[in-house]
Amino acid sequence: MVTRQATQSHMTETEGLLEERLASLEQRLVALEESQPKDRVSLVVFSGDLDRILAAFVVATGAAALGQEVSMFFTFWGYGSLRTKRVLAGKGFLQKLMAVMSPSGTQALPVSKLNFFGIGAKMLRAMMKQKNVSSLEDLIGMARELGVRLIACEMSRDVMGIQDEELIDGLESGGVASFLADALKSRVTLFV
Amino acid sequence: MVTRQATQSHMTETEGLLEERLASLEQRLVALEESQPKDRVSLVVFSGDLDRILAAFVVATGAAALGQEVSMFFTFWGYGSLRTKRVLAGKGFLQKLMAVMSPSGTQALPVSKLNFFGIGAKMLRAMMKQKNVSSLEDLIGMARELGVRLIACEMSRDVMGIQDEELIDGLESGGVASFLADALKSRVTLFV
Amino acid sequence: MVTRQATQSHMTETEGLLEERLASLEQRLVALEESQPKDRVSLVVFSGDLDRILAAFVVATGAAALGQEVSMFFTFWGYGSLRTKRVLAGKGFLQKLMAVMSPSGTQALPVSKLNFFGIGAKMLRAMMKQKNVSSLEDLIGMARELGVRLIACEMSRDVMGIQDEELIDGLESGGVASFLADALKSRVTLFV
Repeated sequence: MVTRQATQSHMTETEGLLEERLASLEQRLVALEESQPKDRVSLVVFSGDLDRILAAFVVATGAAALGQEVSMFFTFWGYGSLRTKRVLAGKGFLQKLMAVMSPSGTQALPVSKLNFFGIGAKMLRAMMKQKNVSSLEDLIGMARELGVRLIACEMSRDVMGIQDEELIDGLESGGVASFLADALKSRVTLFV
Repeated sequence: MVTRQATQSHMTETEGLLEERLASLEQRLVALEESQPKDRVSLVVFSGDLDRILAAFVVATGAAALGQEVSMFFTFWGYGSLRTKRVLAGKGFLQKLMAVMSPSGTQALPVSKLNFFGIGAKMLRAMMKQKNVSSLEDLIGMARELGVRLIACEMSRDVMGIQDEELIDGLESGGVASFLADALKSRVTLFV
Repeated sequence: MVTRQATQSHMTETEGLLEERLASLEQRLVALEESQPKDRVSLVVFSGDLDRILAAFVVATGAAALGQEVSMFFTFWGYGSLRTKRVLAGKGFLQKLMAVMSPSGTQALPVSKLNFFGIGAKMLRAMMKQKNVSSLEDLIGMARELGVRLIACEMSRDVMGIQDEELIDGLESGGVASFLADALKSRVTLFV
């Protein structure tokens, strides 16, 4: 600012007018730079189906590998991909019922079509293995190594009474405002 | 423009060249400002499942509360969240059949998993109430108070023969071009 | 550059300072222009349900008609919209089983709700015809005429053992990086 003030005192009228336009452009450019999408990808993982969750993690790890900041916001059935075991103690009646009927971990996730009590999911896993395609568990590990943020939805968690010991480590906790904070700055937003 | 013309006549050659570059920058900046995403969120609500529709309204009201302009475009099964009653008169045979098999209002919406003829949906509603989480009906009211645009897809409506009296008040009507007009200016776009 | 060098030698100190700021603005503007979203729409078509696929093609053709560059990335069940017949030769056991249980073409696609072994899909098609709404087959044709890029996911294809002769002509092949390359430049991204 000192430089500019100093400069302005020696300016001709024309130079002063040019300087004014320049300063206004600089301001608008800063505003644009701030408000434009950043190198970010934000996903809502709502689904609890193995096939859809696989798709979400393939996009997430792919984007992270390309240098994007990636956030995955897990809500409702999406919690299935974060669970490691089932805990019933400390849950209310409806929460217990829901816990018993939900998959207790990634290995128990169904597929969205042709599941036939888990045969479909096993089939998909076997077909992926035959082709050396990363399993969901591998992809989750990869996502964490690549710094993908895994955010567990507070509201779903509260409603379903999910406890820390049921979930994998290193999760963040957040509400819809957390999701939106990232999503509003993102180039790609998907609801899976 | 008068000022600029006047100025240019007194400009040195260098000043004239600088002015030219400045004018071109100004033009490009205006173009950028116009084409860059606005503070908008656009959702397609395709699903007719209580759980997915809840997620859509949580995102919509959350975004509106953060000052975003929010549009929700309801199509296909998504009409379930806009219906208040079932009218059969004036519908063709297939339209009647579809109306009878579709939920007649938000209270009749199923959940996407473990629905068991509506028990799952009732369970979810009870669990939400226990935790003082807003019901779908509350969220719809909130969305309207916050100025969220609720757009009913003309094509679906025409195909399913849905009539005004079956729907909640204050809906806009629009085609895919309406959705795209908003979505192309949005920071976040989701298909729920 | 020659012009600018020549100019600078005749510049006053003030002009030189203005020129410096101008040059830095130009650079930042180019960066912004490059990184800002382009007139593009990118869709992941994951679903194999007639109703959801219809929605994807309505958005895709609508966007293309508005002058957007549109990419559709077909993965998992989404392959159902690209298949023209079922080929079992050359497939492994699990791949054969999956092929037999999957729709062999667009006419065999189910709807996501009230399908009742295909009756729901036939009903939807009949209702659309009554209202002169384009069929899925028409929309696919339109998408191709409008230059929509149809990209078949390599990984899904490999896992399911899908062969060229089973698919419609003129498809591109790509992985998640292909999808992201387009999606990261897009104004609208949806997961259907």
